[in-house]
Amino acid sequence: MHLIARRLREQGFYAEIVPYSLLRREDLEDTSVKAIVLSGGPPSVYAPGAPRVPDWILELGKPVLGICYGFHLLAEMLGGKVDQGCREYGRTIVRVLDTGDPLFKGWGAEEQTWMSHGDCVREVPPGAKLLAVSENGYVAAFRKQHGDTLVYGVQFHPEVSHTPKGRQLLANFAKLAGAEPWWRPENLIDSIVSDLRSRIRDGRVLVAVSGGVDSTVTAVLLQRAIGERLLAVLVDHGFFREGEVEETVKILESAGIKPLVIDAREEFFEAIRGVSDPEEKRKRIGEMFARIFKRIVEENHDIKYLAQGTLYPDVIESGAAPGADRIKSHHNVGGLPSWLGLEVVEPLREFYKDEVRRLALALGLPRKLAFRHPFPGPGLAVRVIGEVTKEKLEIARKASKIVEDELRKAGLYERVWQAFAVVGDDRWVGVKGDRREEGHIVIVRVVESDDGMTADWTRIPYDVLDRISRRITSEVPGVTMVAYAVTTKPPATIEPQ
Amino acid sequence: MHLIARRLREQGFYAEIVPYSLLRREDLEDTSVKAIVLSGGPPSVYAPGAPRVPDWILELGKPVLGICYGFHLLAEMLGGKVDQGCREYGRTIVRVLDTGDPLFKGWGAEEQTWMSHGDCVREVPPGAKLLAVSENGYVAAFRKQHGDTLVYGVQFHPEVSHTPKGRQLLANFAKLAGAEPWWRPENLIDSIVSDLRSRIRDGRVLVAVSGGVDSTVTAVLLQRAIGERLLAVLVDHGFFREGEVEETVKILESAGIKPLVIDAREEFFEAIRGVSDPEEKRKRIGEMFARIFKRIVEENHDIKYLAQGTLYPDVIESGAAPGADRIKSHHNVGGLPSWLGLEVVEPLREFYKDEVRRLALALGLPRKLAFRHPFPGPGLAVRVIGEVTKEKLEIARKASKIVEDELRKAGLYERVWQAFAVVGDDRWVGVKGDRREEGHIVIVRVVESDDGMTADWTRIPYDVLDRISRRITSEVPGVTMVAYAVTTKPPATIEPQ
Repeated sequence: MHLIARRLREQGFYAEIVPYSLLRREDLEDTSVKAIVLSGGPPSVYAPGAPRVPDWILELGKPVLGICYGFHLLAEMLGGKVDQGCREYGRTIVRVLDTGDPLFKGWGAEEQTWMSHGDCVREVPPGAKLLAVSENGYVAAFRKQHGDTLVYGVQFHPEVSHTPKGRQLLANFAKLAGAEPWWRPENLIDSIVSDLRSRIRDGRVLVAVSGGVDSTVTAVLLQRAIGERLLAVLVDHGFFREGEVEETVKILESAGIKPLVIDAREEFFEAIRGVSDPEEKRKRIGEMFARIFKRIVEENHDIKYLAQGTLYPDVIESGAAPGADRIKSHHNVGGLPSWLGLEVVEPLREFYKDEVRRLALALGLPRKLAFRHPFPGPGLAVRVIGEVTKEKLEIARKASKIVEDELRKAGLYERVWQAFAVVGDDRWVGVKGDRREEGHIVIVRVVESDDGMTADWTRIPYDVLDRISRRITSEVPGVTMVAYAVTTKPPATIEPQ
Repeated sequence: MHLIARRLREQGFYAEIVPYSLLRREDLEDTSVKAIVLSGGPPSVYAPGAPRVPDWILELGKPVLGICYGFHLLAEMLGGKVDQGCREYGRTIVRVLDTGDPLFKGWGAEEQTWMSHGDCVREVPPGAKLLAVSENGYVAAFRKQHGDTLVYGVQFHPEVSHTPKGRQLLANFAKLAGAEPWWRPENLIDSIVSDLRSRIRDGRVLVAVSGGVDSTVTAVLLQRAIGERLLAVLVDHGFFREGEVEETVKILESAGIKPLVIDAREEFFEAIRGVSDPEEKRKRIGEMFARIFKRIVEENHDIKYLAQGTLYPDVIESGAAPGADRIKSHHNVGGLPSWLGLEVVEPLREFYKDEVRRLALALGLPRKLAFRHPFPGPGLAVRVIGEVTKEKLEIARKASKIVEDELRKAGLYERVWQAFAVVGDDRWVGVKGDRREEGHIVIVRVVESDDGMTADWTRIPYDVLDRISRRITSEVPGVTMVAYAVTTKPPATIEPQ
């Protein structure tokens, strides 16, 4: 869903996500809306409670494209036949029957796609044209003119990279619907800054900076808007990566921001002493943050606003995942409690991560910051399994530094989503100079991901892995074994806790 | 050291190892001894206590070959100049100056070798001929006729596989010394059996079988020698791999042996309940074995002998490593205490592991048994880090089965030394069907080794690793993360405990 929107935005076509339950006819009738995409979803249109869209979707005269589940749904709404038990999964060749159709502009007669479905469209709707079939003989795409509305459906996922020409198909759809590729996040900087300036007339704005790209860009945008009235606070919880605090201060200062650095390393360490349970650990760290910011707000009566680096996916997810179980209590440094009594400002709430990176570069921030990997709010504390001790913290810090160094040297750092080292309490017997030593096990995790929601482990070259392992066991005291995490998300999460 | 002997034996040239401190002139004057190899050793001939050999070594009229340290030692004994601080490590090209020399038969003018030294020979001894130089300009080989004795020295290691023509160089040396390639372990079966028969006149022989190739071959040789007077005991400690007990019984039965199977699973489990320390775990398991065998011996007064599957390296190491710290208390199922009062029979004490595998095939044992990976005496108990619980034992068992299965499918099983799964107490947060689950971390270990003394982790194809990870997380309950061990031995050991 986010991937579809991002693929369109990357190509300049602005896209927004609307949960099916919040669709309103008057919103979609707005002339700024050029076309509608129905995304993939649950396994079957026959599943109990499977989402439906109102019939008026097909009466707006705006092109509609259904993908996977959306394709089944459209087929069914238009009188076609959807059937169960015709599963396809993974890379699948699709034969395009009408390469002249504008949706398939640039496609050859046979192209690779990515499939992931259990149901299929057994019969296209009456009057529809079959546009493509899969190598397994299933309907892969159809088109139907329904009154004023042009309806397309595709069984495969054009938004994933395993469908090499999928990006182009999405652009084809946007173009045939008359959409213009006007979207460039960089062009919005001036209007964001002037919006912030006109909204924040008086009082100061508090922003918690963490060294990450989101909070830094938030701070810099505010600095441009309100200058000295910004109070950027960097809480040093002691769980940062090597040199991260110093580097963050330097970057902020060069952007004209003088952050207030609060050294709370001992307090945080004490707060989680003896705590092994990951949820409890996150909770206590969150409480410490809240206490510190409460104190700041109490001591500075002129603070009226709290700025947060909330991104578009967070905005959508906070409202759109009513049934989902809690996976991790999401700790965002900026996610401060409402009882602080401040008005919340979120200048990045319409952007995706890659768009924020573009903003960072456009704002003149260093490339290293713009492409810094996401880092959890509780920092290394959640990359230490079990109780956080100074020894384990030091192992996680030094080993993570080695992982990052070696990936940079190999030119891989910017190509992966996250890369770090984890340490726990399990030990492996080693030999150092003929002497027995029970040392820690360090687990190295390097993943690729589009949005952090799912992730694959990176197939980094074995010689890079070997170098990482040799450096960690020889440079980090107390480590005898390095292991490389080879499980995707799901079933594992990216971070250990 | 063992590698040199094995490389010679593989090519039919029988070789024995003698610690330098046990060299006796009368032994080496025996006409069956054709030549002498001085192996690698400590970093420097100048190190305090560095081993020396007596001067009469060079007066026997039998060719002598020095390798690395042995090369430095010979150079120094013959009046050459050895220098410090001229380190070479890893793959190194060597230029052979006299390709007509019989030692270098089959070598081209430039060949790859493996170096690992800190000292070097700065000047060859007076009257010696320089035979080869390394790409770094150091002496790589020399020859000297010293009275009746022909002396060769090479800086590189011909015994390792990274010196592709090293095997041939060793055979060249044996041939020029007049040695015959008569050694074939398979040919010795009849004489081993008749030796055992003549030695064991009356009374019964107790052998502890474990399902491994060593104890099985020991039992089968004894069965051929003394038939019904063999008592093979299989103690089921509950830490065996999936189906291993049943399979072992089947194999023994088909060789005419009816083993006594003792189900001691509950006793062993109770014996190590609550024990996390690896040494303590091994000790208690060893004690349980001793107690069980003591009972058997007490109840069967006609047992006079204890047969053990001791191999040649164990024989050498037990006497030849006086200064080395204890790495692991080596638990061998057959390593029963002397107070059992039995005479010890060790029919495999002159063989290397690969030779025992050849014996197994020659004895008609299944290939799967002959090439079974080494398995520790305490079994899965030392592949569970921390306290052994039934849950963790089950995880280690099921996950190891998957590792072995997938390696067999990929045709890799016989090409690696050991392959297994380890589980500890550290946990990784996972998501299973939108639900949070803190699951175990399984570490997969696959290593290549010539003798278990050093080992490299195997670069198994990433798609095999991916399949292993997917199967373990989906088929083994309670596992959310699989990691692949990427540390060599040293600094890690092969097994975790």
